Amino acid sequence: MAAVKTVYRSEHDSIGERSVPKDVYYGVQSLRAAENFHITGLTMHPEIINSIAEIKKASAITNYEIGLLDKRVADAIVRACDEIAAGKLHEAFIVDPIQGGAGTSLNMNANEVIANRAIELLGGEKGDYALVNPNDHVNYGQSTNDVFPSAGKMAVLKLLIRAQIQLERLYAALTQKAEEFDGVIKMGRTQMQDAVPIRLGQEFRAYSEAIRRDIVRLERAQDEMRCLNMGGTAIGTGINADEQYLRRIVPNLSKVTGLRLIQAFDLIDATQNLDEFVAVSGAVKTCAVNLSKMCNDLRLLSSGPRCGFNEINLPPRQNGSSIMPGKVNPVIPEVVNQVAFHIIGGDMTVTMAAEAGQLELNAFEPIIFYHLIQSVETLTYAVHTLVDNCIVGITANAARCKAMVDNSVGIITALCPHIGYEAAADLAKRAIETGGSVKDLILEEGVLDEETLEKILDPYSMTEPGISAKELLER
Amino acid sequence: MAAVKTVYRSEHDSIGERSVPKDVYYGVQSLRAAENFHITGLTMHPEIINSIAEIKKASAITNYEIGLLDKRVADAIVRACDEIAAGKLHEAFIVDPIQGGAGTSLNMNANEVIANRAIELLGGEKGDYALVNPNDHVNYGQSTNDVFPSAGKMAVLKLLIRAQIQLERLYAALTQKAEEFDGVIKMGRTQMQDAVPIRLGQEFRAYSEAIRRDIVRLERAQDEMRCLNMGGTAIGTGINADEQYLRRIVPNLSKVTGLRLIQAFDLIDATQNLDEFVAVSGAVKTCAVNLSKMCNDLRLLSSGPRCGFNEINLPPRQNGSSIMPGKVNPVIPEVVNQVAFHIIGGDMTVTMAAEAGQLELNAFEPIIFYHLIQSVETLTYAVHTLVDNCIVGITANAARCKAMVDNSVGIITALCPHIGYEAAADLAKRAIETGGSVKDLILEEGVLDEETLEKILDPYSMTEPGISAKELLER
Amino acid sequence: MAAVKTVYRSEHDSIGERSVPKDVYYGVQSLRAAENFHITGLTMHPEIINSIAEIKKASAITNYEIGLLDKRVADAIVRACDEIAAGKLHEAFIVDPIQGGAGTSLNMNANEVIANRAIELLGGEKGDYALVNPNDHVNYGQSTNDVFPSAGKMAVLKLLIRAQIQLERLYAALTQKAEEFDGVIKMGRTQMQDAVPIRLGQEFRAYSEAIRRDIVRLERAQDEMRCLNMGGTAIGTGINADEQYLRRIVPNLSKVTGLRLIQAFDLIDATQNLDEFVAVSGAVKTCAVNLSKMCNDLRLLSSGPRCGFNEINLPPRQNGSSIMPGKVNPVIPEVVNQVAFHIIGGDMTVTMAAEAGQLELNAFEPIIFYHLIQSVETLTYAVHTLVDNCIVGITANAARCKAMVDNSVGIITALCPHIGYEAAADLAKRAIETGGSVKDLILEEGVLDEETLEKILDPYSMTEPGISAKELLER
Amino acid sequence: MAAVKTVYRSEHDSIGERSVPKDVYYGVQSLRAAENFHITGLTMHPEIINSIAEIKKASAITNYEIGLLDKRVADAIVRACDEIAAGKLHEAFIVDPIQGGAGTSLNMNANEVIANRAIELLGGEKGDYALVNPNDHVNYGQSTNDVFPSAGKMAVLKLLIRAQIQLERLYAALTQKAEEFDGVIKMGRTQMQDAVPIRLGQEFRAYSEAIRRDIVRLERAQDEMRCLNMGGTAIGTGINADEQYLRRIVPNLSKVTGLRLIQAFDLIDATQNLDEFVAVSGAVKTCAVNLSKMCNDLRLLSSGPRCGFNEINLPPRQNGSSIMPGKVNPVIPEVVNQVAFHIIGGDMTVTMAAEAGQLELNAFEPIIFYHLIQSVETLTYAVHTLVDNCIVGITANAARCKAMVDNSVGIITALCPHIGYEAAADLAKRAIETGGSVKDLILEEGVLDEETLEKILDPYSMTEPGISAKELLER
Repeated sequence: MAAVKTVYRSEHDSIGERSVPKDVYYGVQSLRAAENFHITGLTMHPEIINSIAEIKKASAITNYEIGLLDKRVADAIVRACDEIAAGKLHEAFIVDPIQGGAGTSLNMNANEVIANRAIELLGGEKGDYALVNPNDHVNYGQSTNDVFPSAGKMAVLKLLIRAQIQLERLYAALTQKAEEFDGVIKMGRTQMQDAVPIRLGQEFRAYSEAIRRDIVRLERAQDEMRCLNMGGTAIGTGINADEQYLRRIVPNLSKVTGLRLIQAFDLIDATQNLDEFVAVSGAVKTCAVNLSKMCNDLRLLSSGPRCGFNEINLPPRQNGSSIMPGKVNPVIPEVVNQVAFHIIGGDMTVTMAAEAGQLELNAFEPIIFYHLIQSVETLTYAVHTLVDNCIVGITANAARCKAMVDNSVGIITALCPHIGYEAAADLAKRAIETGGSVKDLILEEGVLDEETLEKILDPYSMTEPGISAKELLER
Repeated sequence: MAAVKTVYRSEHDSIGERSVPKDVYYGVQSLRAAENFHITGLTMHPEIINSIAEIKKASAITNYEIGLLDKRVADAIVRACDEIAAGKLHEAFIVDPIQGGAGTSLNMNANEVIANRAIELLGGEKGDYALVNPNDHVNYGQSTNDVFPSAGKMAVLKLLIRAQIQLERLYAALTQKAEEFDGVIKMGRTQMQDAVPIRLGQEFRAYSEAIRRDIVRLERAQDEMRCLNMGGTAIGTGINADEQYLRRIVPNLSKVTGLRLIQAFDLIDATQNLDEFVAVSGAVKTCAVNLSKMCNDLRLLSSGPRCGFNEINLPPRQNGSSIMPGKVNPVIPEVVNQVAFHIIGGDMTVTMAAEAGQLELNAFEPIIFYHLIQSVETLTYAVHTLVDNCIVGITANAARCKAMVDNSVGIITALCPHIGYEAAADLAKRAIETGGSVKDLILEEGVLDEETLEKILDPYSMTEPGISAKELLER
Repeated sequence: MAAVKTVYRSEHDSIGERSVPKDVYYGVQSLRAAENFHITGLTMHPEIINSIAEIKKASAITNYEIGLLDKRVADAIVRACDEIAAGKLHEAFIVDPIQGGAGTSLNMNANEVIANRAIELLGGEKGDYALVNPNDHVNYGQSTNDVFPSAGKMAVLKLLIRAQIQLERLYAALTQKAEEFDGVIKMGRTQMQDAVPIRLGQEFRAYSEAIRRDIVRLERAQDEMRCLNMGGTAIGTGINADEQYLRRIVPNLSKVTGLRLIQAFDLIDATQNLDEFVAVSGAVKTCAVNLSKMCNDLRLLSSGPRCGFNEINLPPRQNGSSIMPGKVNPVIPEVVNQVAFHIIGGDMTVTMAAEAGQLELNAFEPIIFYHLIQSVETLTYAVHTLVDNCIVGITANAARCKAMVDNSVGIITALCPHIGYEAAADLAKRAIETGGSVKDLILEEGVLDEETLEKILDPYSMTEPGISAKELLER
Repeated sequence: MAAVKTVYRSEHDSIGERSVPKDVYYGVQSLRAAENFHITGLTMHPEIINSIAEIKKASAITNYEIGLLDKRVADAIVRACDEIAAGKLHEAFIVDPIQGGAGTSLNMNANEVIANRAIELLGGEKGDYALVNPNDHVNYGQSTNDVFPSAGKMAVLKLLIRAQIQLERLYAALTQKAEEFDGVIKMGRTQMQDAVPIRLGQEFRAYSEAIRRDIVRLERAQDEMRCLNMGGTAIGTGINADEQYLRRIVPNLSKVTGLRLIQAFDLIDATQNLDEFVAVSGAVKTCAVNLSKMCNDLRLLSSGPRCGFNEINLPPRQNGSSIMPGKVNPVIPEVVNQVAFHIIGGDMTVTMAAEAGQLELNAFEPIIFYHLIQSVETLTYAVHTLVDNCIVGITANAARCKAMVDNSVGIITALCPHIGYEAAADLAKRAIETGGSVKDLILEEGVLDEETLEKILDPYSMTEPGISAKELLER
């Protein structure tokens, strides 16, 4: 293979001259940033890149509208932005998601790529910034300090909408199972000890209710992300942003994206305080807690098959073991648990980074976006696989469930209103000691007659509010 | 000193017989719990105790209303509860806030204390549970599993209301300072580097805006705490709870407490899922983040007095050092920072405990309440001292602030629309190297004439949106 | 009741004049601090107070030895310190554990209490600081910035030693159970699914091994706490500390306390970097993780009694429920779990506070000590109750354990070396589907003869390394 | 472009038949896993893949040595493993790093890739598992449950060694700066307030000392990773592992890797308890805390250039702003801060996952490895850029530092031993009020004569232990 000789163009910035490969869209500032920050080896999430392209497009449109940008230049910028938002040129975004500089590296990477692509569209050569300048044209009226947090919010907002769709699918799947399992009577357990009867459908209904609350919280979380500081420029005072620009940029951005976006009431506050991200992360974490609790339960309820609870069967998705034949593991709930731990740890990172802001800016937005985006996205994917590869395929072992209720001591609880707590406790203790049946013991000892007992201990009625066989009590 | 001989009464539970000091209000179950759980050496927060007394009162009223409890017994229970809610008998609540058993120990502690006090009120001897029985009378229609989480929510709700009052005082104090300092022009800083001018009042306005969002979030958080699972009894199915009781208990509890409380739609869900506490903790944590960021800023801005920023003065509250005379430290912001770290760590504990729930119950409510109550309460106290002992006494060093603006390089930003980013960057670089004034350099080099320059570099106009001296640009 | 009229004395500090109740040992600076920091409503942990008294004593001795303090004054200070270290005068330590000022408030509280008690011992009146001065005598050669972190380390060190004692008791108890249960064959479970046989004793041995590692880590953690910055004074440069004092203070402190203490190699580093506390917190947290995992297992293994694993019985410690008679809950493991969550959250607080140090000092030591002390102490108490109220009383249900092994499918794993993974998997799948016994199926299908099968499936040999019935394989 | 028609081969597992692209090295189980777990969109870290290949190689060698594997098959497996460890075939590892199943998916992915490559080397067709079987040959004597955690430990160990190298470079760089700046006298600051003089070199020495402790901790952390559970197979009992294999596998693995590895004393413990990972994560986190604190300081000390501390200059690495010309930001310290927050959050995830282990296995190893590997690696890269792009290029503004000392009030501390704390405090207070020089004030008021004063206030002597001008005191 013949060696390809890389050809370079020369660029410069405040640091000095620097060679850049001739045919790349990024420029000197992107290159320096990529060298300074080799941290994760990854690149920015596509939705951040798309969002920044949308911002640059809306800015170019706005600047053209108010007479601060030539139509020709503005059009070229818009076309370049459209390409990026359509998924092109992403390979030219070379900066690491964990970067110093409060996002300046990504903003300049975007400015350079857009400028060079626009130059090309205008028939120029990459690097000929006289035609389209990254700072003076693409970044006109903007600062990293309004562009970057706004792009972060937009990306998170888009991902939250997708997460909500998956949670709604989960809610539907759980509701469907709640109906399917409504007739399956089983023992409820508190603190891992046999308690009183419940229906399997009631358990799934309870899971669905928790998810419903999470959906509400994630909707509210979306609202936390709608409020942008575009127009605030460097520190929120709006220096160098034309007043017309200030008024039009967010409406234009709403139009470009189709998202409901609003401008922050206080741009200075919106530039330096990142509590909205903490609030969103908290809502995502709360959802992760509910998911993880539910998945812990699914793993418990399906434990066995022979030496565990074995009340439900999760659909087998893959061989469970490289050494133990026939083993099928709850792999889908397990991955959801792990995503929950991932999100909870990420919440801590987001919190620390938000707390560490200083004065007019929080320089730690990159790590916040890196984690929050990961949290929302892994939640989305985890819920997706949970629904499709687990919940919808769950089956119940109704006979096993019923047998455990019949054999339980906990049903004695229903006797309390009839014979008092202490007498019931005494019976329970003896039943546990002898290993015998509660019913047999009660009949043996003549505490109650069989007919009465059957009424009181009817398992279904124990799964609904009310005192079992209250009519007997009132006699 | 003559030895006092303790006299005992005998009580028993499922574990067996046990002597209890004759004159104490608690009984055998409280005693065992106190022995099992010597963990923090502390006792339960008064608001949890008060809330549980309110629940017991509302239950007694309800049970009387529906004919399940004698008027005499009900009245005695109500009177005992009123005493507790008024702060009496709290010393009889001997169980540790970190306890196993999902709160059964506290619930039984309450049942025993109330029963014994009611017995006394009825003329009986403590321990004569035939008169008033802790389980069959005081706990009638209830279970620890609905009483304890409900008491936890009520306690947190009451404390959130108090927290909000302090945050509103903080908001007012910051707003007042925003007005007071509106004329103080100073340098804004991003990433700890000189940026562009801002007014000190704008900075305080930004702080106040963040607090305003926190107030809204804490109000919403209160709603998360209003929804109780009373009536669900053991696992939310409502076993042993009379249907009439179920319908009346929460309205009666609202009446007793004066709080707006509602009954959970799904009592099973409400018994096992603790996401509401995670959500509240998340909101409190978000507020802590804003407070901590603001306090970090206050410590930065008041750094010095000779070798720091020295833009503001915090009111001296105490000697700063045992060795360095004259030193005055930012002790109030420092304590707020620490409370923030406390709350953030507590959020992690709350999260883990909520995630660890299993099946029909979360056994880890005690540690959740312990931390969440501490978080809300330390936040309240921290904000209180922050307002009174710091914010209201802050003064500005306006001359110092102004001098730094005049001496800064950052003001050159305003020239970009006039001479372009690159030319401005070149000037900035040289000014930094020589240590000279930006204005002098510009005039020396004849870049702009003095009149034009003064217009563009007017500091006040740089603190408001718009392109400085835009009319010049348009010429 | 006749009103008691409080009599005051007047004191002053840099803030100004202030009345202090005449008969209290604390002075004006303590009073101001108590007013500034009403945060937790608690006071400092006794071991911090004792440790600070030991430091003041060692300092007085040292200053006397090198001729910087009168014998009379030194002796009075030493006597006052001895009283405090013996648990007296603690009520005069009125400052909140969460305090601003990097511990200056506690240090001055100690200086004032010791000075006033020394004055009294010398026959003077409290407040007559000409006799013994809090700063110039008690604090001589010191600064809060060396006294406070040193006291924190000493307190944590003492508590770590106590924690280790409890962990050694736990190790012994687990080892004893490992022997007791060595003959109990049961099913092992991975991912909550039946795996292959194990002996209950092996499980307890595994727990004990993890605790052994924790003991080693806590021993090492103690070494992290031995290294003090005494002599560094304000910022570690040792300003105002006599060179002789610098050399003698730590050896003297070792003598006073009986602890092996050393002086930091670099006092500046030791004054500003708090990584040792983070390291200790990490070790404590690691131990909490092991304890929590073990307690989760104990709760799983004792689940039931009728509808769970029911392999072991935890000793009943208290009634399990206020509504469900006969219920006995795993209350002791539950409290250990909660302490673990407490410690893990505390670790986060310690970490954030350590990270937030700035330049020559970390002002957030108070919250670090508050949490780390709580973590070590609640761990100690939790392990204490775990050993006494749980581990030593655990019994095994050997017959139940055996029956589950015989009924399991997982034992088929031992056949893999004999018939291959795929053939074994096929058998397992069919056994699970039919619900029948693995052995019966194998015999029915004539895969192996009964004698061979019994050899291969011998449960005991499956709990030890090696290929079951390898001699058959080699034929 | 002509469409390429994918040709498939058929494979089956316990779930059933499945088509797999004919030319890929992975098999049906990998494919199912990749479909079940689309979570991060990433693949496993190369060092995990390499380590698993080394384990498979050592196993094949061992099984051959003890006569359980044909030389031909063993050789083919070894060659396939060597290729993988050399970085080849990594694209065939298609499973997501966040996966359910406790690592079975990765282990089977490795087994399938190795089997198929070995089959190929033996002249067979991919998928012809009669030649080389993923379970019966490649996985012989192993289980996911010993292979996966062992591979995790080996990967972390290798990365820790690389991290240590970077920390040693950092230590050297800081030490060099400590020497370079030893003569630069500046003000020390505590709680952001002027304290007493220090030398800039002393500050860098303190940073280096903290890093030295971290190096020691990371060395110890390496030892936590050396102890493998190879030979324990499914649950640590060693079922199906030949006794000879058990004895030889870890020594063989040491030979294969060149790492010092040992076999766990208790394989059951080592299979289920993951405290070693928590301990390592804790050590890495402790290091992150020190790095972050130091980087916070660097950002403070270099704040300005005109309106901040401006004591040091960080080397400019890139344009600081897209809008503010001439701005140079502390981008490298900022990225280190963010990596620290990343690591601290990751520690929480590792902790939760380790705590969540149940019975004989912890199913959550994948998320532990994902985070711990990221933590160690981002730490390594962050330290690398910190050294090269920041520390080595730092310069001091000695004149500015000196001027601040001369102008400070804090130097008055040195007068305490001469005139007493209170008199000094009084002078300090007045100096602050008037804004004047401390020296002038003292001379004006005739407190001390000029010669005496100069001796006492000699800045250099204030940066070393001892009472300034003690000889005067002793007169």
